[in-house]
Amino acid sequence: MPVDAIEGQLYLEYTRRLTEDLLDKYLPSDTVPPQRLHAAMRYSVMAGGKRLRPALAFAVYKYCNGDVVNNIEIIHLAMAALEMVHTYSLIHDDLPCMDDDDLRRGRPTCHKQFDEAVAVLAGDALHVVAFELMAKTGSIRAVMELAEAIGTSGMLGGQMADVEAEGQAVTRDEIVSIHKRKTGALIRGAVRIGAILAGASEALLSRLTEYGEKIGLAFQIIDDILDIEGDQKLLGKKIGSDSKNQKATYPGTVGLEMARRDAARLIDEALAVINNNKEEDNLLKYLARFIGQREK
Amino acid sequence: MPVDAIEGQLYLEYTRRLTEDLLDKYLPSDTVPPQRLHAAMRYSVMAGGKRLRPALAFAVYKYCNGDVVNNIEIIHLAMAALEMVHTYSLIHDDLPCMDDDDLRRGRPTCHKQFDEAVAVLAGDALHVVAFELMAKTGSIRAVMELAEAIGTSGMLGGQMADVEAEGQAVTRDEIVSIHKRKTGALIRGAVRIGAILAGASEALLSRLTEYGEKIGLAFQIIDDILDIEGDQKLLGKKIGSDSKNQKATYPGTVGLEMARRDAARLIDEALAVINNNKEEDNLLKYLARFIGQREK
Repeated sequence: MPVDAIEGQLYLEYTRRLTEDLLDKYLPSDTVPPQRLHAAMRYSVMAGGKRLRPALAFAVYKYCNGDVVNNIEIIHLAMAALEMVHTYSLIHDDLPCMDDDDLRRGRPTCHKQFDEAVAVLAGDALHVVAFELMAKTGSIRAVMELAEAIGTSGMLGGQMADVEAEGQAVTRDEIVSIHKRKTGALIRGAVRIGAILAGASEALLSRLTEYGEKIGLAFQIIDDILDIEGDQKLLGKKIGSDSKNQKATYPGTVGLEMARRDAARLIDEALAVINNNKEEDNLLKYLARFIGQREK
Repeated sequence: MPVDAIEGQLYLEYTRRLTEDLLDKYLPSDTVPPQRLHAAMRYSVMAGGKRLRPALAFAVYKYCNGDVVNNIEIIHLAMAALEMVHTYSLIHDDLPCMDDDDLRRGRPTCHKQFDEAVAVLAGDALHVVAFELMAKTGSIRAVMELAEAIGTSGMLGGQMADVEAEGQAVTRDEIVSIHKRKTGALIRGAVRIGAILAGASEALLSRLTEYGEKIGLAFQIIDDILDIEGDQKLLGKKIGSDSKNQKATYPGTVGLEMARRDAARLIDEALAVINNNKEEDNLLKYLARFIGQREK
């Protein structure tokens, strides 16, 4: 499946809309009690965003010849679950006791729009719905994969290390370890879950895991770079918050130039993993390049 | 299996110790990074408690002739998962933005012993481990059941309604609805998961669900009563906190006398559900009576 830039853009636009339809479908209605909690969940989930994790999972599912005719619901469930987990982590991350952010995706953060108690519970509730949806795929392995991606050896471990590293000098290895877990683990998990649900061979799964790890780390390095020199309007959040919060960042550790070079190298390596298969341009290559060049 | 009070006490003591061994086995070690997060998870989970939800799940598993010889690990996994979910809900409930409690099970609450950021993440991490363990049972239905018990139509919905009802006058129906969700749903879920993992028939599952609902509601009514007239030392937490926090409580709505009578009636009804089977005294009856008479 050769994919040029226009087709890639169309794909991202398509999965973004599809993901939003799925989120709307799978989220509890805010006319059903507890209305305020459901409203807060919807407020944060439906606030926009690139919907990159669902786009990756879907692209990998198709790449691995997952059944999109008779069995498309299993990947739909996983796409919504991944985005809900991502949103839950943002809500808790934005709390005053964590990063204390007021703005997210161009709107007040959940605890600003509602209150802190609602934000804690809305994050918790999205966390549960994500597992419920993943369980509905019928794949125990996909549920385990999600748990591994977001547990203490993955996302939560990275968030904890991120909080602990505030104001500390960190080495390149340490910041790589934080970023791989904080952001990389869920991106890697999205890729692996797409492959697992498609019934990919272990060899293919292992190759795609490498791809997921490379783009996941690159994604967070670029996030750090954008927090220094990005466009606030495009990003929908204040830039300079890492510096304000004395966060350990990749460019803060190795410098902006080296950070840019390392991100580009990781994207090239991700492309090379896919190239091993001697394939033409495809969606996975497009998505890797998209991550490398993103401005928001 | 006839069970007198001494055998019942021994059973509770046995499952309490078993549960603590299981929790220790399944919790990540605090010598592995992120150490502080793992230490906080262990601090809160290993702080004691009756371990009632695991005891109920195990008793039901045995009652339904679950295999305790070749397949005991599946119920062990579920027991640990239930206690972790319970602890996660307590950690988030105790946060300053929620009930703002300093003392839990006779020790400083998680955010007092560590800090708020760690408490948010430790609750989140226990939440993930619980789903990971439940997935390891291999039963998608048990995973779904857990999600239903603790989601917005269950525990989280009850916590939200509980927060919203602060300082409000509520009717008896409203307080019943809050209690059924806030506390009842997970107790009901523990009973149902024990039955599901044992492969109980739908008829038996439905009867046990009724038992679980009755004792779950009774449990929270008695919790409210103990917050008024309980022994602070036995309880390991300050009494009078409901009144301080202007919580909607069952005795606050119908009076202490009626609250005592309704709790006793619910326990009798739970016993009657089990009696339908014309069985001798058994563990499930003992546990229902234990909940009715507990002083901590």
